[in-house]
Amino acid sequence: MLTIALDAMGGDHAPQNEVQGAVQAARSLGVKVILVGRSNLVRQELEKYEDHADLPIEIVHAEQVITMDDSTDAVRTKKDSSLKVASRLVRDGKAQGLVSAGNTGAVMATAKIVQGVIPGVSRPALAAVFPTVKGSPVVLVDVGANVDCSPRQLSQFAVMGEIYSRIILRRPKPRVGILSIGEEDHKGNDLTRAAKELISGLNLNFLGNVEGRDLFGGNVDVIVCDGFIGNVALKVSEGLGDMVKTLLRESLESTISGKIGYAISRTAFQDFQKRLDYSEYGGAPLLGVRGVCIISHGRANANAIRNAIRVAAEFSEGRVNQQIEEELVVGAR
Amino acid sequence: MLTIALDAMGGDHAPQNEVQGAVQAARSLGVKVILVGRSNLVRQELEKYEDHADLPIEIVHAEQVITMDDSTDAVRTKKDSSLKVASRLVRDGKAQGLVSAGNTGAVMATAKIVQGVIPGVSRPALAAVFPTVKGSPVVLVDVGANVDCSPRQLSQFAVMGEIYSRIILRRPKPRVGILSIGEEDHKGNDLTRAAKELISGLNLNFLGNVEGRDLFGGNVDVIVCDGFIGNVALKVSEGLGDMVKTLLRESLESTISGKIGYAISRTAFQDFQKRLDYSEYGGAPLLGVRGVCIISHGRANANAIRNAIRVAAEFSEGRVNQQIEEELVVGAR
Repeated sequence: MLTIALDAMGGDHAPQNEVQGAVQAARSLGVKVILVGRSNLVRQELEKYEDHADLPIEIVHAEQVITMDDSTDAVRTKKDSSLKVASRLVRDGKAQGLVSAGNTGAVMATAKIVQGVIPGVSRPALAAVFPTVKGSPVVLVDVGANVDCSPRQLSQFAVMGEIYSRIILRRPKPRVGILSIGEEDHKGNDLTRAAKELISGLNLNFLGNVEGRDLFGGNVDVIVCDGFIGNVALKVSEGLGDMVKTLLRESLESTISGKIGYAISRTAFQDFQKRLDYSEYGGAPLLGVRGVCIISHGRANANAIRNAIRVAAEFSEGRVNQQIEEELVVGAR
Repeated sequence: MLTIALDAMGGDHAPQNEVQGAVQAARSLGVKVILVGRSNLVRQELEKYEDHADLPIEIVHAEQVITMDDSTDAVRTKKDSSLKVASRLVRDGKAQGLVSAGNTGAVMATAKIVQGVIPGVSRPALAAVFPTVKGSPVVLVDVGANVDCSPRQLSQFAVMGEIYSRIILRRPKPRVGILSIGEEDHKGNDLTRAAKELISGLNLNFLGNVEGRDLFGGNVDVIVCDGFIGNVALKVSEGLGDMVKTLLRESLESTISGKIGYAISRTAFQDFQKRLDYSEYGGAPLLGVRGVCIISHGRANANAIRNAIRVAAEFSEGRVNQQIEEELVVGAR
């Protein structure tokens, strides 16, 4: 049975949301989940679910916890953190993938150090999946693993992102673009121009330059950029999304007719929110590490955790890493 | 009387929206507007307004038009474009400011070449104004004028953005931040770290690093970054904003109760849209050029054009450029 190691102490609402997500996954996905963390806390939470003893869930104790405020140094100093113990389970073949909603920097560092990097990969990259106006998802790589990138690294992000889009998101022939300013060929900076040269030589459905607004247009499936730009794009989207929800609620609540209208159009709002909701995609995969590593948002709810476990399982079943290795080493892309 | 030169042929709906915006401005702002463009087209449009003969509006003929598809070369080859003729009016002191909703690259190049750069300014920068969840506006500089920037240029953007925020947006003691990934001091890249050093030494209310999500949080008034990052942030925001409007409409229309709810909560939606609407701020000022240059969105409606004319007038009355020169040269910031 495919097994996923879940850092039960990672998120802002750990271990509550983690345990609930694990229960949902174990009930519905045919996947075993190893909950890693302070065993008394985790067990207490797990026992809230009547059917817990019948589910393929195991608890592995880890004494330490890496918090959101810890620096990446904690990866080195806290040798028995739930994160590190979970990552070791993947390294040792006891689990096929790692899921954590913890400190993103710490999760990336741990997966790279403990699980290691796929042969041929220069640098692992963090990918984020966004909804688009057409309903199809788009993958943005890198959203924060690498502040400075070389053209060759961007071309590897294109290869890894394309495989992810094809196998996990089931896009038939993913269109790949490079994030730049203006669509014309000469637009961009030295990095984007050099990377475009390299990516043009690959066997990909490559569109060339795309712009920030294409992120949500549904006309491209994979967008590559360095981790600084990608992180800004991700956080700008999160900030604007939060603002939209707040302003919409305030505007509706400030008028009586708004309140009535809100009650009547409730279904429509739920539909709208669901279509904006990133949690369906479960989290951000760190592409290029051995085993699998899915990083969920610190605020991830149980549904997001469940979906992250699902994605980690599909990642392993779909042999994403083998394909990355073949494309980068054997295919000599 | 303060006079603003308006490129009447710039936007996607030129000269219709331009003329309507000029009429609104001339009626209400106590400002004279010179409409520059094909005089027969502009006159035809202007004569639709009964009171046009009583308004402080003048037409100056220009034969050529720079289109959105033209490259920046058109600034050189089309010597009598409406844009260039309007910019010359500012250079020659016949108008105090330029407004155009045309090709952004061409407008920036024209203003720099024809009007020239303020003494002490290394590179002019394009600023965009965004709404925030708290209702106060935030200025992002640069959003596309300079692809690669030095730390010194970023520190000048901070000075210019702060003056704009204080005088035009009337923020009492603008808080300034630098766009980075993570708020901690060591986070970022070489450029942001070096720029932070420089900006810390200025007499500004400087917060240090801010993140993409702070763009809409209302806890910072001026955010500086290089033009590549700023352009991506701007376009990502535009793309997400468009998606939100589309999804919300679709979700509401797909349910009957949604349609009824929509009718009832109409006022609330109008309020929501108004709070998201960038057109209140009129357009993006190109900070650091002599005279004034406000670049409106190609899709700018008459209200946005009117507001751009208002901002251009306030820019001149508020002596923004004199303050920039004093701060950068005399103040030796």
